[in-house]
Amino acid sequence: MDIRILGSRAKSAARVLARAGSTQKNRALEAIAKALYENTEKILSANKEDIDRAKAAGMAPAMVDRLTLNEERINGMAEGVRQLVAAADPVGRVLYGETRPNGLKIRKVTVPLGVIAVIFEARPNVTADAAALCLKSGNAVILRGGKEAISSNIAIANIMRGAVAEAGLPEDVISLVEDTSRDSATALMRMNEYVDVLIPRGGAGLIRAVVENSTVPVIETGTGNCHVYIDRAADIDMAAEIVFNAKTSRPSVCNACESLLVHEDIAELALIAVNEKLKEKNVEIRGDEAVCAILPDAVPATEEDFGREFLDYIISARVVSNIDQAIEHIARFGTGHSECIVTEDYNAAQKFLDEVDAAAVYVNASTRFTDGGEFGFGAEIGISTQKLHARGPLGLDKLTSEKFIILGSGQIR
Amino acid sequence: MDIRILGSRAKSAARVLARAGSTQKNRALEAIAKALYENTEKILSANKEDIDRAKAAGMAPAMVDRLTLNEERINGMAEGVRQLVAAADPVGRVLYGETRPNGLKIRKVTVPLGVIAVIFEARPNVTADAAALCLKSGNAVILRGGKEAISSNIAIANIMRGAVAEAGLPEDVISLVEDTSRDSATALMRMNEYVDVLIPRGGAGLIRAVVENSTVPVIETGTGNCHVYIDRAADIDMAAEIVFNAKTSRPSVCNACESLLVHEDIAELALIAVNEKLKEKNVEIRGDEAVCAILPDAVPATEEDFGREFLDYIISARVVSNIDQAIEHIARFGTGHSECIVTEDYNAAQKFLDEVDAAAVYVNASTRFTDGGEFGFGAEIGISTQKLHARGPLGLDKLTSEKFIILGSGQIR
Repeated sequence: MDIRILGSRAKSAARVLARAGSTQKNRALEAIAKALYENTEKILSANKEDIDRAKAAGMAPAMVDRLTLNEERINGMAEGVRQLVAAADPVGRVLYGETRPNGLKIRKVTVPLGVIAVIFEARPNVTADAAALCLKSGNAVILRGGKEAISSNIAIANIMRGAVAEAGLPEDVISLVEDTSRDSATALMRMNEYVDVLIPRGGAGLIRAVVENSTVPVIETGTGNCHVYIDRAADIDMAAEIVFNAKTSRPSVCNACESLLVHEDIAELALIAVNEKLKEKNVEIRGDEAVCAILPDAVPATEEDFGREFLDYIISARVVSNIDQAIEHIARFGTGHSECIVTEDYNAAQKFLDEVDAAAVYVNASTRFTDGGEFGFGAEIGISTQKLHARGPLGLDKLTSEKFIILGSGQIR
Repeated sequence: MDIRILGSRAKSAARVLARAGSTQKNRALEAIAKALYENTEKILSANKEDIDRAKAAGMAPAMVDRLTLNEERINGMAEGVRQLVAAADPVGRVLYGETRPNGLKIRKVTVPLGVIAVIFEARPNVTADAAALCLKSGNAVILRGGKEAISSNIAIANIMRGAVAEAGLPEDVISLVEDTSRDSATALMRMNEYVDVLIPRGGAGLIRAVVENSTVPVIETGTGNCHVYIDRAADIDMAAEIVFNAKTSRPSVCNACESLLVHEDIAELALIAVNEKLKEKNVEIRGDEAVCAILPDAVPATEEDFGREFLDYIISARVVSNIDQAIEHIARFGTGHSECIVTEDYNAAQKFLDEVDAAAVYVNASTRFTDGGEFGFGAEIGISTQKLHARGPLGLDKLTSEKFIILGSGQIR
């Protein structure tokens, strides 16, 4: 289907969905969850096509794994959709209300954004996650996944569309762009007439391409070059545990630690303790000169290493002379995702919290907590690293806009 | 100065400003207000250069008027800056706080956006307004005005920079791009490294160019093709007063009414009553066939007229068969600014409020109230017509972002 026709249908469907109550939206979510369970076989057989194609093309095993669905993963998808039924409806909340001196009653209420386009890469579970979050928040969604998962995505999207229609909503509240060429992505980025917001979910390359090319407003998610700074006044055992957890508990995610900064006064003790822990998982340390002098196993870091999101068992490391240098380093190399100081010093903690500019700034805790579930907000569509509209976990409430309602009795100005 | 150097200096200054307390920011605002008063002569003589140039180039008198400063207008600028001293500081507010089951204390606090670039057109008072709002909200500002007002803008910006420095803040928290070529605007739109948000203030052409070309996140302000819909159940006298006020109290602004929709059941009475009023100001009515049949003075409207922001004593008008057709018309031609229904019917009012998608939706009041001051929010930098981040009056609180602060005691995940 021509992508503009798809856009226009999504826009019409969005207007119907915006008027649907929670009951009806929840009924559609239940129907989607049920349909995903019941059509597990169909999804698996479509997924097998993707896997066969991937293997034939020589895709790396880790990538094949991300692409692979099984009964458990499909159940997980369905369960994720069902959990949203219990979530509070983010639409129709009165955020503010006042009566003006002239008698005008002003209220600010939450409304859906309209049509959200999500451009994502290999993981087919994003299809269901994103569609369910958009549906709950009253938004039509246009999904544009990668070519690797296209068979799975088509199967999942069709099942969801059928379920939505059964529940009495237009099926076009969920649509999938089946053309996975770059052209379709570019077209989406410029369909301001039909698309209200675009959310890229994927690697740095995808996000850069979207920011560069989109005329539709974007919510950037993702890249996390997260630092842990071990202050002079740190509890060294705690620091080693935090770095170990932040680096190795799941290295492929955006809230993983990628870079370590250590105050020179405790550099030797701290680096040795951290290195002991990291060795358990064979983490490669790429250090500056001072780090390499302390840790003979460390590899010399290039300037580029400090700017990299490794997403792997690799960490860059640098010794700094003071907290200001640490903050300066983070300002230069950080991506504004999650940054941590380990310290027992009140003033150092306050300074770091005040001066580091990122979505999440931690004292004495692993950066791995930057997550909608861990923050207590429930499911999220990604972690926003931009400053407009949403910063941090992009949950249901951030998939809404606002509208002023003004009730008068003939007031003129 | 090279615009990238200017950007880099603004970014550094923004980091200093972000750490300044309200007291220091207010001292700078006081200093700016005082300096504007004291340098009235200097500003007037710079403004005279602009006016002389404009007249020599044959600029229309209305445009020359917008460009013209006098003692009263400069006092008004200074007074506007001073009023912000009393406004609440939008930075450092805790929006939310919770202790998670694992003991992590999470707080969401407001922080400045960073560097805001404002691209604006002829009116030199925007220079002081925008700079003061950005300063109060802890943001460095890069101002890029039009060439018509360049002498005035340079004078005002230099006076403000001097005042800011006197108050102990870096002068680069306010900077002006003196190059008024298109190149400088385009460069600003793509300086993601230094500019956090871009706000265009001006006509539809400027805003379109920014949306098309900017890779920096944009807050669109402005174009208002605002409708008044006179429902079947309207109080006709009230309707006529509201249309008259919304159209003629200040036709050149974005919250002025540009288009009238009338229910067919009362079309004749309503149109005659409205026309009586509008005649007082010689407003031209461009109507569809049904309108022209009732009002012999009306000019036949083209399709294009319904999409136009006249900003003049002209209004388009159409007879609709029902409220759904009115809502449909607004969805098609509206710009999402301010829309009004005049009705005594509860259900019609609710339906209009629910289904019309705009920053401000009115029942029985003039669209002219869409304004930061009228809404009780104080000064604003424009009216946002986009759905992300800010919708409606763009006041101090919308010039901030958020940051999550997480206080731990060694938590790992």
